[in-house]
Amino acid sequence: EELAGAGASTSNNVGVDVESVTAVNIHNETFVERNFTDEEQKYCFAAADPQSSFAGTWSAKEAVFKSLGVKSRGAGAELRSIEIQRDTKGAPTVVLHGDAKTAAVSAGVKEVKVSISHNEFQAVAVAIAEK
Amino acid sequence: EELAGAGASTSNNVGVDVESVTAVNIHNETFVERNFTDEEQKYCFAAADPQSSFAGTWSAKEAVFKSLGVKSRGAGAELRSIEIQRDTKGAPTVVLHGDAKTAAVSAGVKEVKVSISHNEFQAVAVAIAEK
Amino acid sequence: EELAGAGASTSNNVGVDVESVTAVNIHNETFVERNFTDEEQKYCFAAADPQSSFAGTWSAKEAVFKSLGVKSRGAGAELRSIEIQRDTKGAPTVVLHGDAKTAAVSAGVKEVKVSISHNEFQAVAVAIAEK
Repeated sequence: EELAGAGASTSNNVGVDVESVTAVNIHNETFVERNFTDEEQKYCFAAADPQSSFAGTWSAKEAVFKSLGVKSRGAGAELRSIEIQRDTKGAPTVVLHGDAKTAAVSAGVKEVKVSISHNEFQAVAVAIAEK
Repeated sequence: EELAGAGASTSNNVGVDVESVTAVNIHNETFVERNFTDEEQKYCFAAADPQSSFAGTWSAKEAVFKSLGVKSRGAGAELRSIEIQRDTKGAPTVVLHGDAKTAAVSAGVKEVKVSISHNEFQAVAVAIAEK
Repeated sequence: EELAGAGASTSNNVGVDVESVTAVNIHNETFVERNFTDEEQKYCFAAADPQSSFAGTWSAKEAVFKSLGVKSRGAGAELRSIEIQRDTKGAPTVVLHGDAKTAAVSAGVKEVKVSISHNEFQAVAVAIAEK
């Protein structure tokens, strides 16, 4: 009677996240340190608009997190373990460390793709976890 | 000469929807009853912010609807037949009933995944229909 | 130690784009001509809300562009070569021409799907390039 999208699915998963550009307090050093890797901080602070860049990177982390289908999230440790790198074309790529990597592997995720966009108000990211 | 994405495609389909959080009138009982299942109503009214929760659920229904590639839509019957449930991790899952299920089956859709996000202004959802 | 999403991936790619509805100046004839095909212009100017329709189409082009994983972009030529058509159900479909088509073929992309949504403020689009 039903066509379900739940359960121990073997198909790809999607994650979306929207953030107000102002939602990330980039002047809070403790917060930044807890959630962003050194490389991410370097990239975002060097960007034309650091505030938007941090919001976009944050949004990407959240979207990836959702795409992994993991339940709970630590206060920041897990977001730091989802690293958003930039390839030679400037496109965001996902590298998972620690708990995030373990969760992905145990869920059968082979690769996670993410895309980010922002305007002056909001950042949006979409991630796809491929199995 | 062209690389087309149209036609009777056998590949996965995507749907996106953005809604202002205030766009869903949750005080209109007839509207709520026509578009949301009993379980959805229970979940959204019990949420920390019912207005955002209804907007997010509405957005998910619309995104799923688009991902099915169906043409027309009834005044509400079809949105009610796209049910957004929450799994044990709180993640949204899709269960199709009635016409929506029939449409999905005839389009060769095996599973629909959806993700929802909202901030104080807007709700965004992305759905992927897998074939 | 890492689960990477980068490199010469054989898996599907995703692109997202968000635009303020007012970001596209539809009264600038040169701009419109440079970025939109004749069919797109006809469709958008005939829409109930041309401004939103152009913003949505623009957003779709950007999302598709990102999903192709191409590096640089010309001042408009390439956006014009990503054409957003509407099928008989009114759903957006992607047809690539020229450079965009060449890039897609060389990246192994078989098909690109896109979905568009807008409210009074913003347009959002998500594209998936399937390999």
